[in-house]
Amino acid sequence: MQTRIIPLRRQQPSFDMHPYPSITAPKMSLTDQEVLGFRYQADMSSGHAYHDLPPALACLPDEMPALWRTASHQNPLEWEQQLISAFSDLSGVHSLKRLPYCRPCPTASNSIDLCATLLKRFSWRTALVEPTFDNLALILRRRGVPLCAISECMVFDAEPQELKQWLKKNRIDVLFIVSPTNPSGRCLSVQRLDIISRLCTRMGITLALDSSFRLYNRELFDDVDILLRNQTRFIAFEDTGKTIPTLDTKASLIYSSADLAKELEELYNEVYLCCSGLSLALLTRSFELAKDAGLENVLWRLVDQRRSRLRSALVGTGLSVAPESMHSVTGLEWLTFDAKEYNDLQVCTLLEEYGVAIVSGRQFYWASSVLAEHQCRVRLSMMKPEHNFERALQILRLLGNQGGLFCRSKK
Amino acid sequence: MQTRIIPLRRQQPSFDMHPYPSITAPKMSLTDQEVLGFRYQADMSSGHAYHDLPPALACLPDEMPALWRTASHQNPLEWEQQLISAFSDLSGVHSLKRLPYCRPCPTASNSIDLCATLLKRFSWRTALVEPTFDNLALILRRRGVPLCAISECMVFDAEPQELKQWLKKNRIDVLFIVSPTNPSGRCLSVQRLDIISRLCTRMGITLALDSSFRLYNRELFDDVDILLRNQTRFIAFEDTGKTIPTLDTKASLIYSSADLAKELEELYNEVYLCCSGLSLALLTRSFELAKDAGLENVLWRLVDQRRSRLRSALVGTGLSVAPESMHSVTGLEWLTFDAKEYNDLQVCTLLEEYGVAIVSGRQFYWASSVLAEHQCRVRLSMMKPEHNFERALQILRLLGNQGGLFCRSKK
Repeated sequence: MQTRIIPLRRQQPSFDMHPYPSITAPKMSLTDQEVLGFRYQADMSSGHAYHDLPPALACLPDEMPALWRTASHQNPLEWEQQLISAFSDLSGVHSLKRLPYCRPCPTASNSIDLCATLLKRFSWRTALVEPTFDNLALILRRRGVPLCAISECMVFDAEPQELKQWLKKNRIDVLFIVSPTNPSGRCLSVQRLDIISRLCTRMGITLALDSSFRLYNRELFDDVDILLRNQTRFIAFEDTGKTIPTLDTKASLIYSSADLAKELEELYNEVYLCCSGLSLALLTRSFELAKDAGLENVLWRLVDQRRSRLRSALVGTGLSVAPESMHSVTGLEWLTFDAKEYNDLQVCTLLEEYGVAIVSGRQFYWASSVLAEHQCRVRLSMMKPEHNFERALQILRLLGNQGGLFCRSKK
Repeated sequence: MQTRIIPLRRQQPSFDMHPYPSITAPKMSLTDQEVLGFRYQADMSSGHAYHDLPPALACLPDEMPALWRTASHQNPLEWEQQLISAFSDLSGVHSLKRLPYCRPCPTASNSIDLCATLLKRFSWRTALVEPTFDNLALILRRRGVPLCAISECMVFDAEPQELKQWLKKNRIDVLFIVSPTNPSGRCLSVQRLDIISRLCTRMGITLALDSSFRLYNRELFDDVDILLRNQTRFIAFEDTGKTIPTLDTKASLIYSSADLAKELEELYNEVYLCCSGLSLALLTRSFELAKDAGLENVLWRLVDQRRSRLRSALVGTGLSVAPESMHSVTGLEWLTFDAKEYNDLQVCTLLEEYGVAIVSGRQFYWASSVLAEHQCRVRLSMMKPEHNFERALQILRLLGNQGGLFCRSKK
């Protein structure tokens, strides 16, 4: 007997103060789509860490009272110092401690905004990688940074000479890159970062580095050490919100080379005195526990298992892994589809009808979303509570068994 | 026998990554001073809520595990809805629930930044109250908002006709006011807000309202109801960080009239998906507990007692309450001094030598800090742990007994 699935009604929102359009209404940003995704039973839209606490971190809720009491006897600079120290130990970025300025922002987007404000201040012409999450481009543009797009291939794969020519031809002041990449989940290697860093130094280019997904990288290394050794001018930031499932309780360390530290401090102090001591204590403790248990046990194995389960469930659905994302290390899956008559928004709408919320791919192509070849990707996040993830897999499996997502529409 | 006090050595910082200049180095912002203040044994500099948890909220640390577990079964929109509901109940601003858009930012400065970005978008000429905390002007200027200063007297005391003439003469598009005021601790009355709101509506002026210190107001009222009834175009924000001592774990609700909601949503979504569920759950619970116990017991009595103790301790020191701040309701004290040959920076330096960190007054006069009459105020925050507050009082009392702050220098 075969179960027949029918399109599901969206969960009725339990409150009515927010508008409730389709997830693929025109001109939506990715975050617009993610906000709407909250209302779906199988919400795979946002890339935030919403998975269940791994066993090694399961003690965190019960440790909160003690963390609070300890933090209440410390000052904000001590909270920060402990966070930086624990993060350095976990990530291997020991050179963070050698930097003259490193402070936490409440979210990675706040760090992006500080970067944007700094780049704007110098009117620096900035090459931002494409594809990438659209809020990077939205915030940089909002702050008036002159932007042009550099392809992921150029950043990751091009011959150094070719990259150099491109940077020169486009009169680039700042190279703004993301590693691991969002959506495709690629990591800059030690060797590639060294090449890029030395190139930037020689050309007087500032490197801006979004390391929000760093802890997914299976080959962690001290990238700050490379930048310091090469005397590259840089600004960079981290994030905990993509990896540690603390209900969006997060911190984003932002730091720079010494020659930008004074400007960064001025901009930081315009907006922040400090971050939540409770959040910083919680994240510090998370880093310590993750270090003790190993990222293999706290994060990587879960990602690999979920990727494996998802890829199995995709069989027969008409959705498949995008070739450039085949070796992704992150908790995101970047998908393509084999129905040429559909675009990304239509695929999202089809899945939406079955109760699965994902985000469309075109917005990641922030400078070229109108191109047809940039409308054939969708992104799905796997870092969700197990029951939500399994619910999405069930729906995908049923779709696969019934001829796929595009079958019903084709008839 | 009289105890003789000598200037204290500053506490040695336990880490050396931050620069460590004098608290009154040139061109410091107030936040610059507050960051340095963290290092002082009697740090009265920042206006954040660093006092001990009041008895009615003392259960909060132990409730964190349960709050975490409950929040983990809810989505971010539910976290927010509960926060808004509890805040409305505590503050009496029930009309918040009638607004089409109301979301939390991590900090009040993030809300200021969203306001600034919105005002810039419309190129609105903005009158910002003076004196006020300097980050309002710094952020508005940073975002390119055309600014001019409107005096606190004009906002609070002028005849409506005079205020109207001033707004007209200066071609104002946005009136940006703060209530209760920081530093002077004055509150707009129902009647005064109604006058201003109606004036704004008639003149097509947008009202921007910083209500960060709202809960200090002993006569809480539903200001949003007034703005809605008068059909005033407005944008406004709240803050918990000035009142609830949760180690800088805070949320700042930002909201607007319907005609600005779409723009506000777009700007919010560029930067935020949501805030920490743990922070929002904690603050929701704080509001509930404060509502049950009454703000009288949770906040106001402490403020009044500390103000009384501080004012007693000031006798003989050469410092006294600024006349415009005599009836302040907030946890801040705005002081003047009777040594005409000293300015505010010098007074801060003198107190700094005794281990007391406060902030200088001139930066609050963000448009006119060079005027001599704007260099004769300092601000002190009373919302500190009891032992820090008492330590500051001890130092002030000893100074008072020994001829005052200016005695030694005069000799």
